[in-house]
Amino acid sequence: MVETITSLIKSKQYIEVRKMLSEINPADIATIFSEFSEDMLPILFRILPKDIATDVFVEMSGSEQQTLIKSFSDFELKIMFEDLFLDDAVDIIEEMPANVVKRILSSSSPEVRSQINSILNYPKDSAGSIMTIEYVSLKKHMTVEQAFNHIKKTGVDKETIYTCYVTDPSRILIGIVTAKALLLADRDATVEEVMETNVIYANTLDDKEEVAKTIDKYGFLALPVVDKEKRLVGIVTVDDAIEVIQEEAEEDISKMAAITPNEKPYLESSVFSIWKARIPWLLLLMISATVTGAIIASFESALAACAVLTTFIPMLMGTGGNSGSQASVTVIRELSLGEVKLSDIFRVQWKELRVSMLCGITLGVVEFAKLMVFDSLLFGNQAITLNVAIAVSLTICLTVILAKLVGCSLPIIAQRLGFDPAVMASPFITTVVDALSLIVFFTIASSILNL
Amino acid sequence: MVETITSLIKSKQYIEVRKMLSEINPADIATIFSEFSEDMLPILFRILPKDIATDVFVEMSGSEQQTLIKSFSDFELKIMFEDLFLDDAVDIIEEMPANVVKRILSSSSPEVRSQINSILNYPKDSAGSIMTIEYVSLKKHMTVEQAFNHIKKTGVDKETIYTCYVTDPSRILIGIVTAKALLLADRDATVEEVMETNVIYANTLDDKEEVAKTIDKYGFLALPVVDKEKRLVGIVTVDDAIEVIQEEAEEDISKMAAITPNEKPYLESSVFSIWKARIPWLLLLMISATVTGAIIASFESALAACAVLTTFIPMLMGTGGNSGSQASVTVIRELSLGEVKLSDIFRVQWKELRVSMLCGITLGVVEFAKLMVFDSLLFGNQAITLNVAIAVSLTICLTVILAKLVGCSLPIIAQRLGFDPAVMASPFITTVVDALSLIVFFTIASSILNL
Repeated sequence: MVETITSLIKSKQYIEVRKMLSEINPADIATIFSEFSEDMLPILFRILPKDIATDVFVEMSGSEQQTLIKSFSDFELKIMFEDLFLDDAVDIIEEMPANVVKRILSSSSPEVRSQINSILNYPKDSAGSIMTIEYVSLKKHMTVEQAFNHIKKTGVDKETIYTCYVTDPSRILIGIVTAKALLLADRDATVEEVMETNVIYANTLDDKEEVAKTIDKYGFLALPVVDKEKRLVGIVTVDDAIEVIQEEAEEDISKMAAITPNEKPYLESSVFSIWKARIPWLLLLMISATVTGAIIASFESALAACAVLTTFIPMLMGTGGNSGSQASVTVIRELSLGEVKLSDIFRVQWKELRVSMLCGITLGVVEFAKLMVFDSLLFGNQAITLNVAIAVSLTICLTVILAKLVGCSLPIIAQRLGFDPAVMASPFITTVVDALSLIVFFTIASSILNL
Repeated sequence: MVETITSLIKSKQYIEVRKMLSEINPADIATIFSEFSEDMLPILFRILPKDIATDVFVEMSGSEQQTLIKSFSDFELKIMFEDLFLDDAVDIIEEMPANVVKRILSSSSPEVRSQINSILNYPKDSAGSIMTIEYVSLKKHMTVEQAFNHIKKTGVDKETIYTCYVTDPSRILIGIVTAKALLLADRDATVEEVMETNVIYANTLDDKEEVAKTIDKYGFLALPVVDKEKRLVGIVTVDDAIEVIQEEAEEDISKMAAITPNEKPYLESSVFSIWKARIPWLLLLMISATVTGAIIASFESALAACAVLTTFIPMLMGTGGNSGSQASVTVIRELSLGEVKLSDIFRVQWKELRVSMLCGITLGVVEFAKLMVFDSLLFGNQAITLNVAIAVSLTICLTVILAKLVGCSLPIIAQRLGFDPAVMASPFITTVVDALSLIVFFTIASSILNL
């Protein structure tokens, strides 16, 4: 594909290229273009049929869009941003450096500019910031026939025509009517007769994650967004909801791995920005690990008396850490999906207590067998006495139980205190658990081996 | 809400309850019902208006559905599963124990039964297993007018009417036409004139994650599914795509936390099943931690000679582990989203090398300062000599670099070898990194402190 296009362009057969491209879905064209060097983009883009150029532009990566915008004349820029759906336009602008934004806004028509600004003014992550204003609104006294004619007239440049919104003269949302309802209805019935009046809607300031959850929960194709006076100001469509749901998952995953979330795709982010997203956590965790160091130091005599104990430290801390993050990650995700509520804390702890006892005993028994059969009997490791084996196995069992209880409780407590539970995630909990496991280990060991 | 309903039912005012409920969205009714004890469900469910009962049933939890099915007469069961959309019916059946499934299938009409079976026969996670067969199909010679009449006649019980599928006499998919295109078209134009002929479709055996990605990529409301002969057999709708996207995220998160993925919600899963999902990994990781123990043992003399080194083991392993999982988790997720391809391995490694050097140096310097200023100067800890500080800081720096390179490479290598990259996730990498960090530490320490 790329070769053919390159050769065709070399031989100036632009019409051929255009014919080829007009057969392809814009999303795929964007993928194909991304194979070319960025300086080719302006040429390629101008070859595109006008009607799909905008759709391709939307699908491109931020840096590609920037290259193109640089190559645009102010007029081309104006046309482009008037063709874009407002929510797409805003998404793109939010990615651009200040100077580019300035140019886009100054070149676009006052009307478009004020619309873009109004959306840019909504707080980040609010419903308002992801909504579009291209929706079909109907009046209740219209007949189905008239409604269809209205859709025919205005529908072309609406993001969706499948859910229409019924507003009163003061733009207050009084009902919704789906295209399906209109199609199945009698042509001279009035919109009022077919419309659904108990409308589920979002407010401009609602969290976009809530909006996405609502769209998902009810299986909507779009959700209306209203202002304080319940006046309809925009809609959020299902494709935006999918994006939010994915972002949310990425955020949780990042935080669980102690990374400050970053919306830019990995390969496009600069080394420095990746460093910035990771280093604070590494520093925090490195410093907090001083605690575990101090604990070991305070048991130095015990370790000196029975050096073999040291060899178990990594295994004990590792097992504790893994057990803890199994519990915490599960609970964190369930919290952010709304499957677990704050009030469930005791149910969760009771579940984890039983799970952790099962896990703890299993691991303890296996480790005990391993120590006695392999290390002691087979490899005749003198240092592994029965008491050592008991101390280690007992510690594992207790550590796992503690780890899972801490792991499942901290996120819920964090949420109740108004922190982000994901920040309480694996690495942080690991540090807490490390400390606990060492204390348990040395206490048990020194008492059993009376050191 | 729950109180009012309870009291109304006590006073046998069923009509009141029905009126109340008919005002509410089925998804919300399901939430309200879940507040009641399960033995109330059959009564509540029978109060529901027939037309929304099925929608409520779909929104209920598996165990609630089971309670209801138990209470259903074979006739009620038959009606229920004939009203359900086929994909919903199959989702529910897949959750049910064998005996319930048997009853459902035997009570439902031969036609429905064969449809359900045909879908149940598609491999798990295939497009066929999540598709529905309730779609609108048109013929190319129909006029737009006729198309609308056809939709009016058959549309009511189709899952979506917004994308219609044009098939030839042998059911081969030859085009799609959106309700939007039909609405905007001239009423006596033929379907052939308005239909889109280069159709993007999935095959019954395609992975459902691919299907979801396609729907997301192109912003479709539904994707047609065809068999080997390109005959249309069903469609996958956007709401199913959202579900798949979420499942995928859950799976990745579970695996990253060393948990075998489990589709059942946490609070509904039995203690034993949770144990089963977690214990294999804990065992594996506990056993593999023996390596780190062995490494420590082999440097016992060095540790004996300079006991303070032991106190740094947790911090070094923790920092290494966290750095590693930051890299691995990022790469694993990018791989499963398709943002990073196998061929990107060198780009990724080069990026991580630079990031890790930045992180390593930062952490090394901070730790060095901390050791010299706080531990040595302020707290006058004799054990922290300049050489110890150098050894520790140097180890941190190297460990972080190693950890990130291992962390970003293993998942990609795993994928290339055909394993699931997420299985190479944090905990496993942590074990590898733990071993590396200890070796680095002891080698550097013994040479600098010539132990």
